[in-house]
Amino acid sequence: MKQNISKAVIKRLPRYYRYLGELLDAGITRISSEELSKIMKVTASQIRQDLNNFGGFGHQGYGYNVETLKDEISVILGLKSPHNLIIVGGGNLGRAIAGYPKFGNRGFIVKAIFDNDKSVIGSRVGDIETYSVDLLENIVPTLDIDIAVLTMPKEHAAETAERLYKLGIKAFWNFAHTDLQLPGDAFCENVHLSDSLMQLSYRLKNSL
Amino acid sequence: MKQNISKAVIKRLPRYYRYLGELLDAGITRISSEELSKIMKVTASQIRQDLNNFGGFGHQGYGYNVETLKDEISVILGLKSPHNLIIVGGGNLGRAIAGYPKFGNRGFIVKAIFDNDKSVIGSRVGDIETYSVDLLENIVPTLDIDIAVLTMPKEHAAETAERLYKLGIKAFWNFAHTDLQLPGDAFCENVHLSDSLMQLSYRLKNSL
Repeated sequence: MKQNISKAVIKRLPRYYRYLGELLDAGITRISSEELSKIMKVTASQIRQDLNNFGGFGHQGYGYNVETLKDEISVILGLKSPHNLIIVGGGNLGRAIAGYPKFGNRGFIVKAIFDNDKSVIGSRVGDIETYSVDLLENIVPTLDIDIAVLTMPKEHAAETAERLYKLGIKAFWNFAHTDLQLPGDAFCENVHLSDSLMQLSYRLKNSL
Repeated sequence: MKQNISKAVIKRLPRYYRYLGELLDAGITRISSEELSKIMKVTASQIRQDLNNFGGFGHQGYGYNVETLKDEISVILGLKSPHNLIIVGGGNLGRAIAGYPKFGNRGFIVKAIFDNDKSVIGSRVGDIETYSVDLLENIVPTLDIDIAVLTMPKEHAAETAERLYKLGIKAFWNFAHTDLQLPGDAFCENVHLSDSLMQLSYRLKNSL
């Protein structure tokens, strides 16, 4: 069944996960799809439909158990088993991601940073060491890496992704300002910050 | 006419802008919608349709002049007039954004950083000073700010956005891990990094 879940539903799951976490933090243990609908500003029928993709965890007249639902979503999202990450690009953005404690709490463990700048190589973010990018082939195979975070300039992104793919990495979190061409069994989530900022600029211009 | 452009088209415009910039960097001055289609992996008819929203800049048998098209898109996106930004949250992410030279090159000028952490207040990123968040009401009105970048923890995001809205800021670039409830004439672009990382985790789990 899971194979047929639409991309749109998958895109909404982290948002459910986030809202359920906020409810739990607020001490709310049970919620109806109507209440969840109000908070999340999607229709109750959308919520029921989305969650039915996974067999549905609600019960007529009871609603959803917040903790159970959050837990089930975390299983679906693959958050139950830890993921090992490397960051290629030890500039400000790479270091910000390396130092963000919430990723570690959710099982995304940054194992190493790589850079080509001698002034950065050898430095640490917490426990995480920065290595020369020349050592990718030596170090990556020893670390059981699932995900590569690309925070280097776009000029080096394609070549680096190719090297990492050859080392067995299939998942790329790409902040470099370019779209990567990856083999069919690899996949990529892009965070193009400029694209997002330009949309804000557009809305600003057209709201005036 | 501009009022009726769909959100989907607006979302694609920064990508056109980016690819046209890459073409210019490579010395390509003229391109057909078919060639652009191959590079961007969208259909040629989609490209023609998208660009027709703005009157269309192509000519039968000639294609598009890359520089003119990029320039027209930059007008549409509001990139021709500079925008003044403040960053609230002077941690790693806020400093990464403050120090990112490409934003400045595109007319997004960071004027000040605000934080509540005494160890950060008074420090600089390049020329940009970090002030106490208590001084928002004193400093923001002097800077002619268009856009507030929110890189503080989610617990303070709603209250800060409300203060900034009262100071006349309508555009929010929100990295705090929460959805803001803003008045109808304000708008927000969210960059929820965890959501993006969770989608990668989902795809990793379901590709195995």
